[in-house]
Amino acid sequence: MKDEKILAAHGGGGALTRQLVEEIFLPAFANDMLLEMGDSALFELGGQRLALTTDSFVVRPLFFPGGDIGRLAVCGTVNDLAVSGAKPLYLSVGMIIEEGFAIDDLRKITASMSASAAEAGVKIITGDTKVVGRGQADGLYINTSGVGLLPPERKAAERPPAPGDFILLNGNIAEHGLAVMAAREGLTLNQAVLSDVAPLNGLIGALCENCRVLAMRDPTRGGVAASLNEWAQKYHVGIEIEERQLPISKEARALSEILGLDPLVIANEGKFLSLMPESDAPAALELMKKHLLGKNSAVIGKISAQYPGKVSLRTLCGGLRLVEMPSGEILPRIC
Amino acid sequence: MKDEKILAAHGGGGALTRQLVEEIFLPAFANDMLLEMGDSALFELGGQRLALTTDSFVVRPLFFPGGDIGRLAVCGTVNDLAVSGAKPLYLSVGMIIEEGFAIDDLRKITASMSASAAEAGVKIITGDTKVVGRGQADGLYINTSGVGLLPPERKAAERPPAPGDFILLNGNIAEHGLAVMAAREGLTLNQAVLSDVAPLNGLIGALCENCRVLAMRDPTRGGVAASLNEWAQKYHVGIEIEERQLPISKEARALSEILGLDPLVIANEGKFLSLMPESDAPAALELMKKHLLGKNSAVIGKISAQYPGKVSLRTLCGGLRLVEMPSGEILPRIC
Repeated sequence: MKDEKILAAHGGGGALTRQLVEEIFLPAFANDMLLEMGDSALFELGGQRLALTTDSFVVRPLFFPGGDIGRLAVCGTVNDLAVSGAKPLYLSVGMIIEEGFAIDDLRKITASMSASAAEAGVKIITGDTKVVGRGQADGLYINTSGVGLLPPERKAAERPPAPGDFILLNGNIAEHGLAVMAAREGLTLNQAVLSDVAPLNGLIGALCENCRVLAMRDPTRGGVAASLNEWAQKYHVGIEIEERQLPISKEARALSEILGLDPLVIANEGKFLSLMPESDAPAALELMKKHLLGKNSAVIGKISAQYPGKVSLRTLCGGLRLVEMPSGEILPRIC
Repeated sequence: MKDEKILAAHGGGGALTRQLVEEIFLPAFANDMLLEMGDSALFELGGQRLALTTDSFVVRPLFFPGGDIGRLAVCGTVNDLAVSGAKPLYLSVGMIIEEGFAIDDLRKITASMSASAAEAGVKIITGDTKVVGRGQADGLYINTSGVGLLPPERKAAERPPAPGDFILLNGNIAEHGLAVMAAREGLTLNQAVLSDVAPLNGLIGALCENCRVLAMRDPTRGGVAASLNEWAQKYHVGIEIEERQLPISKEARALSEILGLDPLVIANEGKFLSLMPESDAPAALELMKKHLLGKNSAVIGKISAQYPGKVSLRTLCGGLRLVEMPSGEILPRIC
C-alpha cells in the first residue's frame, strides 16, 4: 500500500477495512488477544475473564429517527461486549468536539447516553474531552470503550460451528442504516424507518444462560453480509441463508429499493446473529420472541458443508446467489 | 450555558474544561467512580481493584520533535493509569482517519505505538477504525483507553495530604508543549526542545513500592499549574512552590519567553507530580534521580497551611505570587 491514501471505503467495515487491519494494525500490534479479532478482546486477570472493546462514532447526522450519536455510542460498545459473551459493566467516553458546537446539543446527547447506560445497566465511569477548531470534527465524534466480565458459569463455546448448526437473528434488518441515510438525504416517507439502536445485553444474557450458543456477532457496519462472511472465513464453513426467512419490514424493503441498497449490507445497531446446534434453536427462538428486542426473531439459515468460506442466499424463487463481503464505500459515517 | 457554544478553551484543560465537566458530564453520568475525578476511574471486580481510563489525541502536527501522535496516545494513557497507582496492562486504540491520509504515515504512527507499548510493557489488544471525509478530521485523531491493575500490596494513600508534605517532580517542565508549538509555528532554534513524551509506569511503580506516595498527577494539558490547582482545591490545602527549585532547561525557558507563555501552564507528557511525607522525600528523590526518566527530579514545593485552595510561587527574588488555574485558550491541540 506504498504511496496509497486512505479511502472512505477503508472505514466501511468491508474488504478494505479488513485489508487495513491485516496489513497495518495486526503486524504492528501483534499479540494473541488482538489476533482473535473478536468484537471485544478477552483477557484473564487474577482468575477472572474480562473483555475490553472500543468504538468511535462519527455518525452523520448526530440526531436521526430512533436515536442519536449518544445512544449509539453506548449501545454499540455494550453490544460488542455482549456478543463476546461478556456482561458489560463500565464504559469510558472520549469526546472530540468542534469549536462552535451548541452546548444544548451536547446536553441532549449526554442525557441520551445516560438514559441508554441506565437501560443497559452499565456505568460511565471516566471520560475525556478535546476541542478542535471549526471544520475539524464535523460537530462531534464520540469514542466509547467498555469493560465486561465473562460470567464464570458461562462456558466458552463447546466446539466450533459445524454443518447443520442454525443461525438466528433477533429481528428486522437494515433499520439503523436506513434511518440514518433517510435523515441525511432528507427523505420523508409515510412510514418512517426508525433506527433499531438498543442495548442487547439483557436478551443475550438470557439466551446464553439457556442455550448452547456457539458464536455471536452484531451485524453493524457491512450488515448481515459482512458478519456472515467473517464467520464463513473464520471457521472455514459454508453458510446458507433463506431469503424468505430474513426478517425485514415493508418500509425498510421499500426504502432499500429507493436507495438502491441491498438490505443485507446495511448496518444494524440492535441486532445480533447467533449460531447454535439445531436442537437448541426452538427453545432459543421461543425465548428470544418473548423479549421486547426479539419479537421478530427468526432462524435465517444454517451452516452448510458446501462452499466453505462462502455465504449464499436461497432466493424466494429457489435459486442460490452468492452474498459477497461488502467492498467499496457503501454507507459512510453510518455509526 | 443555554444557547452557548463550545469554545476552544473548553478543551484547554483549565477552568472552562472543568465547568463543562461539572455542569454537563457529571450530572448526566453521575456515579461515585466518576465523581472521584481521578486520572483513571477505579473499580472492584471479584476482589481485584482495576483502573479504566480514556484519552483522545488531536495533536497538531502529528509528528513533532521528540515524538508523534502514536507515541503520545500510548504514553498518555499508560501515564494516566500509572499516576492512579495502577499497573497498566491492556490498551484499546480507536482511530478516526481522514480520507486521503497517507497510509505510509499511518504505518509510521502504528510502528511508533507498537514501540511505545513494548517500552511500557503493555499490549494493544483491540481497536476500531473509522474514516471520515476530507476536511473532517484534520488528518488523524486517536483514542486510547486502558485497563490497569492496582497491585494488591500497593495500599491506598494512608491519609490525605497535610501541611508539611513535599511535592516532587521527575524533571524538566514544559518540553512537550513547547516542542509541539515550535513545530507548529515553524520555529527553529539552535537547540531544539524535544517533547518529553515517555511512559512513566516503570519509574512510578518503583517509587510506589518504596515510598509512601499520598497522591500523583501527570501535568499534561494546563501544565503543572492546573495539576497543582486541582490538588489545592480537591484537598482544600495551600500549595507553595519554589521558582528556584523548578527544573527547566535553558532552551525551554528561552522558547517560553519567545512564545510569551508561562512554563507552568505548558503541557508535559513524561512528567508526574507526587506528594509524600517530608520524611520519605530524600529516599524518593534518590530513587527517582537514578532512573532515566528522573535525572532532573526535584522537590518543587510543599503543602502549606496558608491560603487553602490556592497555589503560590515563591519567586527568585523571594516574593510570593499566585499561580492561577489556567483559563482561556492556552495551547489548542497540544495532545
